[in-house]
Amino acid sequence: MNRTTLTEQIIETRIRKGITWADVARELGTGKEWVTTACLGQMTFSKDQAEKVVAIFDLPVEAVAVLQSPPTRGLDAAAVASDPVILRLREIVTVYGPTIKELIHEEFGDGIMSAIDFRLRLDRREDPKGDRVELVLSGKYLAYPTV
Amino acid sequence: MNRTTLTEQIIETRIRKGITWADVARELGTGKEWVTTACLGQMTFSKDQAEKVVAIFDLPVEAVAVLQSPPTRGLDAAAVASDPVILRLREIVTVYGPTIKELIHEEFGDGIMSAIDFRLRLDRREDPKGDRVELVLSGKYLAYPTV
Amino acid sequence: MNRTTLTEQIIETRIRKGITWADVARELGTGKEWVTTACLGQMTFSKDQAEKVVAIFDLPVEAVAVLQSPPTRGLDAAAVASDPVILRLREIVTVYGPTIKELIHEEFGDGIMSAIDFRLRLDRREDPKGDRVELVLSGKYLAYPTV
Amino acid sequence: MNRTTLTEQIIETRIRKGITWADVARELGTGKEWVTTACLGQMTFSKDQAEKVVAIFDLPVEAVAVLQSPPTRGLDAAAVASDPVILRLREIVTVYGPTIKELIHEEFGDGIMSAIDFRLRLDRREDPKGDRVELVLSGKYLAYPTV
Amino acid sequence: MNRTTLTEQIIETRIRKGITWADVARELGTGKEWVTTACLGQMTFSKDQAEKVVAIFDLPVEAVAVLQSPPTRGLDAAAVASDPVILRLREIVTVYGPTIKELIHEEFGDGIMSAIDFRLRLDRREDPKGDRVELVLSGKYLAYPTV
Amino acid sequence: MNRTTLTEQIIETRIRKGITWADVARELGTGKEWVTTACLGQMTFSKDQAEKVVAIFDLPVEAVAVLQSPPTRGLDAAAVASDPVILRLREIVTVYGPTIKELIHEEFGDGIMSAIDFRLRLDRREDPKGDRVELVLSGKYLAYPTV
Amino acid sequence: MNRTTLTEQIIETRIRKGITWADVARELGTGKEWVTTACLGQMTFSKDQAEKVVAIFDLPVEAVAVLQSPPTRGLDAAAVASDPVILRLREIVTVYGPTIKELIHEEFGDGIMSAIDFRLRLDRREDPKGDRVELVLSGKYLAYPTV
Amino acid sequence: MNRTTLTEQIIETRIRKGITWADVARELGTGKEWVTTACLGQMTFSKDQAEKVVAIFDLPVEAVAVLQSPPTRGLDAAAVASDPVILRLREIVTVYGPTIKELIHEEFGDGIMSAIDFRLRLDRREDPKGDRVELVLSGKYLAYPTV
Amino acid sequence: MNRTTLTEQIIETRIRKGITWADVARELGTGKEWVTTACLGQMTFSKDQAEKVVAIFDLPVEAVAVLQSPPTRGLDAAAVASDPVILRLREIVTVYGPTIKELIHEEFGDGIMSAIDFRLRLDRREDPKGDRVELVLSGKYLAYPTV
Amino acid sequence: MNRTTLTEQIIETRIRKGITWADVARELGTGKEWVTTACLGQMTFSKDQAEKVVAIFDLPVEAVAVLQSPPTRGLDAAAVASDPVILRLREIVTVYGPTIKELIHEEFGDGIMSAIDFRLRLDRREDPKGDRVELVLSGKYLAYPTV
Repeated sequence: MNRTTLTEQIIETRIRKGITWADVARELGTGKEWVTTACLGQMTFSKDQAEKVVAIFDLPVEAVAVLQSPPTRGLDAAAVASDPVILRLREIVTVYGPTIKELIHEEFGDGIMSAIDFRLRLDRREDPKGDRVELVLSGKYLAYPTV
Repeated sequence: MNRTTLTEQIIETRIRKGITWADVARELGTGKEWVTTACLGQMTFSKDQAEKVVAIFDLPVEAVAVLQSPPTRGLDAAAVASDPVILRLREIVTVYGPTIKELIHEEFGDGIMSAIDFRLRLDRREDPKGDRVELVLSGKYLAYPTV
Repeated sequence: MNRTTLTEQIIETRIRKGITWADVARELGTGKEWVTTACLGQMTFSKDQAEKVVAIFDLPVEAVAVLQSPPTRGLDAAAVASDPVILRLREIVTVYGPTIKELIHEEFGDGIMSAIDFRLRLDRREDPKGDRVELVLSGKYLAYPTV
Repeated sequence: MNRTTLTEQIIETRIRKGITWADVARELGTGKEWVTTACLGQMTFSKDQAEKVVAIFDLPVEAVAVLQSPPTRGLDAAAVASDPVILRLREIVTVYGPTIKELIHEEFGDGIMSAIDFRLRLDRREDPKGDRVELVLSGKYLAYPTV
Repeated sequence: MNRTTLTEQIIETRIRKGITWADVARELGTGKEWVTTACLGQMTFSKDQAEKVVAIFDLPVEAVAVLQSPPTRGLDAAAVASDPVILRLREIVTVYGPTIKELIHEEFGDGIMSAIDFRLRLDRREDPKGDRVELVLSGKYLAYPTV
Repeated sequence: MNRTTLTEQIIETRIRKGITWADVARELGTGKEWVTTACLGQMTFSKDQAEKVVAIFDLPVEAVAVLQSPPTRGLDAAAVASDPVILRLREIVTVYGPTIKELIHEEFGDGIMSAIDFRLRLDRREDPKGDRVELVLSGKYLAYPTV
Repeated sequence: MNRTTLTEQIIETRIRKGITWADVARELGTGKEWVTTACLGQMTFSKDQAEKVVAIFDLPVEAVAVLQSPPTRGLDAAAVASDPVILRLREIVTVYGPTIKELIHEEFGDGIMSAIDFRLRLDRREDPKGDRVELVLSGKYLAYPTV
Repeated sequence: MNRTTLTEQIIETRIRKGITWADVARELGTGKEWVTTACLGQMTFSKDQAEKVVAIFDLPVEAVAVLQSPPTRGLDAAAVASDPVILRLREIVTVYGPTIKELIHEEFGDGIMSAIDFRLRLDRREDPKGDRVELVLSGKYLAYPTV
Repeated sequence: MNRTTLTEQIIETRIRKGITWADVARELGTGKEWVTTACLGQMTFSKDQAEKVVAIFDLPVEAVAVLQSPPTRGLDAAAVASDPVILRLREIVTVYGPTIKELIHEEFGDGIMSAIDFRLRLDRREDPKGDRVELVLSGKYLAYPTV
Repeated sequence: MNRTTLTEQIIETRIRKGITWADVARELGTGKEWVTTACLGQMTFSKDQAEKVVAIFDLPVEAVAVLQSPPTRGLDAAAVASDPVILRLREIVTVYGPTIKELIHEEFGDGIMSAIDFRLRLDRREDPKGDRVELVLSGKYLAYPTV
């Protein structure tokens, strides 16, 4: 039993029992974005959170310790690398990435947007020409040293 | 003279003359995100826009036709693939991509966020613990066929 | 049990029982192209469709929920990447892809053919010099933003 | 002067002079799909066709011989590998490729659709929900040996 | 049970029982090259052939259906990609491939040698300076369209 | 001036002057396969051969020394890696490679077919169902050490 | 003239004129590590620093603006990817990377060492068994969000 | 049972039993950096060390021999290649690697820092602006031959 | 049971029973280099050798046939591709490979050193500055055809 | 002018003037292996050596400084990666690499053969069955730390 096998169990149980990510977020008192990321094996749970996750997804009790240990990130993402949802995100980085680099430098100076001190929000925006997915990415600006 | 050489000239002239992307946006009456993306060779200009770009960046007059022709996208992005700003964006796709996939499916059904019918906004959010880069990505939801 | 293992079972059972894709399409009342794509793990079934698939291929009853959940696309395609049928399709993209790009731009403007709002049809065309495979690919035109 | 440099000249001259692919097709008396593919360096011109191409695009007279020599295919396609139009075609091969393989086998037996004895057609289909790009791919069926 | 597992069983049983490929060819009344290719999972057997293969290699009776179904080609070849016999064949394609391309064009025009309508023969040629492996590759010439 | 630039000049001059590979072979008194391979930069010419090649293709006199120096092989082959003629040869190695390995071992023992002590022949075989390309590959058998 | 060409000029001039990196650091009043990184095209100079660099390396006056603009990082590093000094650094990441990950988590919790808010120091440590290179890498600890 | 499976058991047991790497270091009387590297499968234990590791992590007694045998290094590192902690280390090699190369050459001459005769130290440095991770890498200088 | 699983068993049994490669060489009456290569799955054993290997490593009796069958080479080498011992060998090919090519051509003419008719010897050379590993690689010279 | 352009000039001049590597070695008083490696851009010359190289190959006088500066290694090797001489060396690493690893560990313990403190010798060994290339690789043994 390691984090990867727990993630697989969570994914399978969620579908079988018809649990929504919003349900899990409510149960743990966190945002739906964070809790989904954590359940997919990309974040560390606190003891309290881990116990609730074990209960919701019928995991073995030893999982409480594993869910509190920092995971190896990115493994499951590799498994979805050919999925069109992910391909669109990569294409956005390809087409708009240099723009984002230019505008961060113009607004802040020589530095980056952190991917660690970072929050994601996903919302539905109604639109008469077809509803839209809106992603808000917020990361701390980090500056390069100057001497 | 093709789009790639024009993009290089724009980049070099902008730095040499100290033009900001905000200046260019004001001049063309568009958002700074769109105009930067277009000047980096990823969007097609209208005739009017192309003439202004030629004037701002001292491009040869034949550039007006080239700038109105749909570009081959992604070429310049490849050139910045090793830059830490871009690497952070890719990492965000790796760590949060499966989350985005799950939440789109939970909120909308089986489909994706378009990368074509798509808008980007980049803002500075002041924060006492250090200012933050905020990216808003808005793309139309597109559903898969069901029969 | 996840979507990948169900796809493997469907493939093995179909051969063993001698079921044709046309049979499955008739049973579900859909096109043969869509149903084959879905059975190969690339589309989401409705509840009614999922129950019929479970019956046809002797799948366990829990499969009904899994088949209704959006799949991770492209996984099985990777497994056939060295097959000559797939290699020919890739070669067509290599040799004719830039042509398709040029003609979409000439006919519609700066945009793409959607791969989501998309339908496939495969027919046999009789020909005295040898019958031909005819593929019809129909995708919605999506335009890039212009400001 | 080789085929690659001629292709670059054709692309640049076409944009500068505002020639359409449909114009070129009319001039040469061929389909717009074949002539675009050939002008992009993927097909061999006859002597008569080569002379017309040289005239249309102001190429040097030595180009007549080069345009009649079989090209090395796929080189320019590599240059557009990151373009979203091409990425969608690749995604279609990934998601629908195994389906195409299955249905060719069901309809014809163990063989493939030729990419050489092959024709492409691209049309606009009007649609109230947004016009559609329609691609028709027609390739001869080739069977594998059976003993 | 799928084609891949059957191939593994055939390979292991052949070695354990000391069967030669020539034996199998004699039994099925085919060439040794075709039957070896088919037993390695790259060709489709007829019902009669499949039944003989099942008998020779002690396969389960359900294998008769699987062996008659078109395989996914190239999978096992990937497994031997680092073997020096295969490396030499690839090197021959690298060093002599452009020669073959030139001479096909000189002899036939703009087209290719088919890899589907194709036959292989392997013979031993005695030679005082050391015996030689002789491979004869025969494929139908396929021409590109000219308008 | 190095071997790569000489190869490019040979290729361009041959097309421009309408020289055939058979012409060159006759002039040098070698097989058409060897001389094409050598002119494409993959073989070393003798002094006498080099002088004839320089004369045929109008090369500078210093080329005589360069053509007699062993080349770096495979460079030009890389340039044609996406060409369908080459792709078919690679596919043949993928599909029939393991067969060739098995049959060499069955006929000769544990060893390989040399790619150095190697000869190629390409012929046209007339056939009522369409003429065929016939390649004969002959390489010395080399055995692995046994203690 | 862009940052890449300036970096090449700096590298060539430094060798030709026999300037040491320690000289440059003294001149600019910065650490030798930072100034070398900046001269190799990986950091942004201030106006004052840029003017000194232009003077030291005989660069054209327009270089002052280019050197103050945030660079695309990592480009030159790619050029040295096969060098043994770099290969040893990569091997250290391979062999000791998971250790570093474990010990950061044990000492700090779930987070990373920043590569932006980061300083490098390189010293010589005398040692009777052979002098040693000592690298000190200091990066700010950044924690992942916990809800 | 091989080294890879032992490493997996160590990782799982450590989390389940709440053992710290500092605990293991104390028990074996070594540095925490070396012992973590060794437990992750990258170093060879002495007999005495191996017996203690077997006791601490409840490994089978046959593990004592395996842990004393030189491992195949880098295997587990591959498994964490997508983790942000490792990505930052790689980025540091990309951005600062050429600097390290230059400064080794300036200080020592033409040679490298050994990755074998090498020691790692990881410490926490308190800092009012946020604590810092400090890595000290010490490797013997090795010179290239000069004649 | 195939050659790969036998190799794994040999590796594990050797460590568990404390057998040295020198022991195995003595038992079989071969060089330690050949026998190690063969036990690692890269050479074919004779019947007599295979029976001894089965006895030494407690392999099942069916292994005698498998060990006499030519293996697929290079598979296990792939598994050690990240190991520093192997990385140094690759680096030597990178840094000294072109030298070896030049000197073979200068000494012998246009040809190669065979990797099949090839012998390896590994010895320890005592040296006051630290003992040295000495590898002797001996391969037959093979010449390219000249007409 | 940088090291790469000097290497190209050396290679072209050597062929044009008919200089042998043995000549260069004699002139500089070094081994032919070292001097060839250095002339191919992989070693640093002393002042005295550099001046002789400049004289032999008619290089510009500024080359004296460049040839004394440590090079970026491996660049030219990449250019010959497809050459059969190099391919054989790589294959030897693939087939015999794990053997070398095992025997170094058996003879010396857990460590490697250095690729820096390393010497190469290439000799011709006469043999009635065909002369042989003999390579002697000698590298210092380096041990891993044990606590």
